[in-house]
Formats: sequence, structure tokens, C-alpha cells
Amino acid sequence: MALRVCVVTVSDRCSRGEATDTAGKALAGLVKDHFGAEAVRVERLCVPDEVAAIQQAVAQAALASPITQEGNNPKTDNNDASAASDGAQSVNDTNTGGGEDAVSRLVITAGGTGCSPRDVTPEAVAPLLTRPLPGLNHLLSTRSLEATPMAALSRFTCGVTSTGALVLTFPGSEKACRECFTFVQPVLDHALDSIADHRSHTEAVHK
Amino acid sequence: MALRVCVVTVSDRCSRGEATDTAGKALAGLVKDHFGAEAVRVERLCVPDEVAAIQQAVAQAALASPITQEGNNPKTDNNDASAASDGAQSVNDTNTGGGEDAVSRLVITAGGTGCSPRDVTPEAVAPLLTRPLPGLNHLLSTRSLEATPMAALSRFTCGVTSTGALVLTFPGSEKACRECFTFVQPVLDHALDSIADHRSHTEAVHK
Amino acid sequence: MALRVCVVTVSDRCSRGEATDTAGKALAGLVKDHFGAEAVRVERLCVPDEVAAIQQAVAQAALASPITQEGNNPKTDNNDASAASDGAQSVNDTNTGGGEDAVSRLVITAGGTGCSPRDVTPEAVAPLLTRPLPGLNHLLSTRSLEATPMAALSRFTCGVTSTGALVLTFPGSEKACRECFTFVQPVLDHALDSIADHRSHTEAVHK
Ligand code: NA
Repeated sequence: MALRVCVVTVSDRCSRGEATDTAGKALAGLVKDHFGAEAVRVERLCVPDEVAAIQQAVAQAALASPITQEGNNPKTDNNDASAASDGAQSVNDTNTGGGEDAVSRLVITAGGTGCSPRDVTPEAVAPLLTRPLPGLNHLLSTRSLEATPMAALSRFTCGVTSTGALVLTFPGSEKACRECFTFVQPVLDHALDSIADHRSHTEAVHK
Repeated sequence: MALRVCVVTVSDRCSRGEATDTAGKALAGLVKDHFGAEAVRVERLCVPDEVAAIQQAVAQAALASPITQEGNNPKTDNNDASAASDGAQSVNDTNTGGGEDAVSRLVITAGGTGCSPRDVTPEAVAPLLTRPLPGLNHLLSTRSLEATPMAALSRFTCGVTSTGALVLTFPGSEKACRECFTFVQPVLDHALDSIADHRSHTEAVHK
Repeated sequence: MALRVCVVTVSDRCSRGEATDTAGKALAGLVKDHFGAEAVRVERLCVPDEVAAIQQAVAQAALASPITQEGNNPKTDNNDASAASDGAQSVNDTNTGGGEDAVSRLVITAGGTGCSPRDVTPEAVAPLLTRPLPGLNHLLSTRSLEATPMAALSRFTCGVTSTGALVLTFPGSEKACRECFTFVQPVLDHALDSIADHRSHTEAVHK
């Protein structure tokens, strides 16, 4: 069964089509490389730096993420030819690969973690996390600080939603996203496996 | 006056007697080595991975921990001959050593800090902490990450209860418990001394 | 326009005049060295280890900090000749330098971050922060732990107030204050710039 992953780029400029979402594209590529293109279905969304828009995108991905039709959903990043082809390719992968998760089990946000006025990703994501994972924030902070002291201004807010989706909040730059993905990569499979136990557990409990 | 310490092992399997509580036993030994067997009274409990059971064990230890009679309390780990003899020995120490703290001033939990469904120690412990100690979580995360990246999935939740007990939450493996104890060991005496000021202060205030 | 900075020393002994506030004086000097004596107006307050007094001092500095007249305000540290002359000098700087921020954009507290009964700075500051900055706490913890394991008992509580002031909470010793200032120094300008965006943003929103 294909693992569903959603990459949510948080950027006013990208969501208005004034900039290319290179960070989201890079993350989608890294996700496919990590899990194998056949084994994963990567969806990409792009939202403005607004709490409601970010929250809705993450919640929708984690709760009951419909496959967005290209060009149909204003939030879907289609300003980038490669990104669009990424999306199409993912749908094909899914079609050939058989079933897939009903919802995204991994959501990665890119952007909005700083301390400027428009940086509201933590405010949007934190209320969705029933189980914060401070150790992942710690790992991301520690490793990011090795690259630049400016990482001290990042407000990492990783954790697990009530539906058992792992949410990772990365900074907005492509470079930082690439770095952060490599930082969490060694624990990613184990995290998803552990949380999957969570999912089957809560499903069992709620039936 | 003997320092009272409670080691709470959080493990479904240990609490059902299906596994030996090696982590709890190791911690009890380390506690005695650190403070000196004459100066400390170590109590050991074993509870399942349930919020209520963990919370009750920690609260009871920190608030008004009665000396559990061996075999009388289903929570007491008596599946391990050595553990049982540890318990007996502790009682003897107390009897010969004179007075002791009325409640445990240090509670160490082992297990339940991960991100799988049954890992609920943080959820149980956090509400008991009137004074979280994020610096201890930081120390434990930093040092644990040097040993394994998997430590990023640990949710350390250390702090001080309203009654002035220091609560340390360690992972479940004996290896991780041994490591974590050595990480906090350099600050343990100073932490207990500082918090003891807290205790006398709050006692003075409430009289 | 002169940047306004407030250094709040949290110390029972200093506030009673039983000790000299060397930490606050050192911080004021470091702030002037960092921003340039012409460009900054440093105010110094000294309050006892009481939640209400700390909270009032920080809130007043960040919200509508009046220039305290020397000797008029019992909270102002005037037990130290150099400190008093610092204060006078700052007023002169302001007078000659023209305008200044209406409120402090940076508030640094010194003391009260430990885990003993009288250490309540985190309890006082946390409710004032609409935007905690855990990355700064992380930086301060990481770097402080390199100096001493005792830093694990510090409860750093940095963040941004609703009025856009950056609050940094340092330990009470002059040595720790000097160290902590150098730890945040590389990101201080960028943090204030980012938050200043915040300020103009919220001002725009609220007009
Ligand atoms: Na941390």
C-alpha cells in the first residue's frame, strides 16, 4: 500500500504565484528518494502565511486528504511545471501501485517557522498535535544550529495529530528543507512505524 | 534522614509478570550507588502503560508514598527475585538507619516515553509537574542523541511536583536508563538541594 | 532613533540593597557595546524574586516604559555608583540623540531561572509571551551546558510579547549573563529586525 505524504509549502509569494516553490519540490523529491517512488504518493499544497489556511491544509491532509485535481484546487502549486509533473507522476504511481493510505501519514510543512509577523506555522500546527514530539524539535534545532546560529529563531513544532499523522515543520528555504529532511531521515521510518501502532490502536479503541 | 526514592517501571509486560524489570532494577542499583545504600530508601513499583496507573504511582510516591508490603501490592515488582530482595534490603536499611523522608523526593520512571500508542508516560506525568524542568529534558535529549538518533523520538518530561519531588522520565530499556542516569548524575544533588529549599519554603508558606 | 533596552535584575538581595547588581551592570555594558552607546538607551531595574514584581517590571518595560527618575523609583538599582552613572549617561544619550523607541524592544532579565523556591522568573515571564522562541532557549541551553552541567537546571523562557518586545531570560550570575549574551549576540539584530516587522504589522492591523 502506497504511503501518502503531503508537503505543504507556507508562503505568501508562492501561493500568489509570484515565486516558484523550490522548497516544496525539493522535499517531494527527497520523500520519493527516501521511500521509493513506487511506495509513496506525494501530494503538494501551497498556502499563504495565514493560520487558518495552514491549519486547514494540514488537517485536511492528515484527516481525509482528497487527491487534488491538478488546476482544480487553487492551493495546489501549479506555478511550476516540474511540480505539476510531480503531481501527475504521483497519481500514476498510485494507479499502477494499487491501494494507498486513505490519508497522509506524513505531513511536512515548509516555511512560516521564524519570528517575523507573517510566520505563523507553529500557531497553526500546534493545536493539531495531540502528541508533540519535542525530541524531533530538539534534533532539528541542534543540527540546524550546527549550520547557522540563525536556526535559533526557528520555532520547530513537530508532533503527531489525533489521526496518527506525523507533522514536521521545516523552515522555508530550500537549503534548510533539504538539511532538515536529512536530519530526521534516520528516525523517519521508525517514527512512522511507531505511530502506525498508534493508528491501529486508536482505530481499535474507537470501533 | 534517609532520602526516599521511587523507581516506577512503566511496562505492560513487566506489570503482567511476562518480563523481568531489568531497567527498574538497574536504576535502583544506580540510585543506591550514587547516594550510598545507607542514605537512601529505594522503593520500586511497576505499572502498565496506562495514564491513570502511571499518574497514581507517581503521585502516590511524591505525595504520601506508603512502604508497600511485598506481595501485598499488585503494582510492586515481585517477579524478579533480585528485585524482591532489593525491596527487603531497603526496608532493613530504613529500619536500621532511623528516620526517612515522609515521601519520595526523587521519582524516576522507566518506559513509556516513545511515540507509539502505548507510550503515555508524558501524558501521565506532565499534569503532575507544577514546575517543568526543560533544561533536564534538553540535557537528556542532547546526550541521548549522541548515543542514537532514535532518541529524537523520546519525549522527556522532567520537572518538580507541587510537593517538591523531582520526577525524571527515562526510556524503557535498561541501557537507556543506565545512560540517562549518568547524564543527570552531575546535577542530581544540586537539583534535590535546590528543590528542598522549595519544599521548606512551601511548607513555611502553607503553615 | 535610539533602541530602548531594559535590563531587569531579579534578586531579593539586590532589590534590598544587600548586594551589588553586577550582572545587570555587565549586561547594560554588553548591550551598549553591541548596539553602540549612541544608538541605545539602556534602562535598568531591580526587582525581588516575586512573580508580580517581575511581571510588572517586564510588562512595563515592554508596554509603556517610563524613564525612571534616579532615586525616585525604589526598583531602580542605585546601590551601585557605576550603575547610577550608567543610568544618568543613558538619559544624556537620549537627550542628545533625539527620539527613541516609545517602549523597550529588548528586555533581558537576570536571575530567577533556577529550580529553587524563589526562582520564579519563568512563571512571571511565560504569560507575557504571545510567541515563545524555543529555539533561543535551545541555543542558550546547548551553549550553557558546554560551560557547566548545572545549566540543565536553568529554565530559559525567551520569546516575544504581544507588543513585539524580545524577552531574554538569563541566569543571575554575572558570568552566566556575560556568556548568555555572547550566545545570543549573533542572532540578536536579526531577531529584533524580524520582530520589528511584527510590530509594524500588528500596529497596522490594530489601526
Ligand atoms: Na531543547
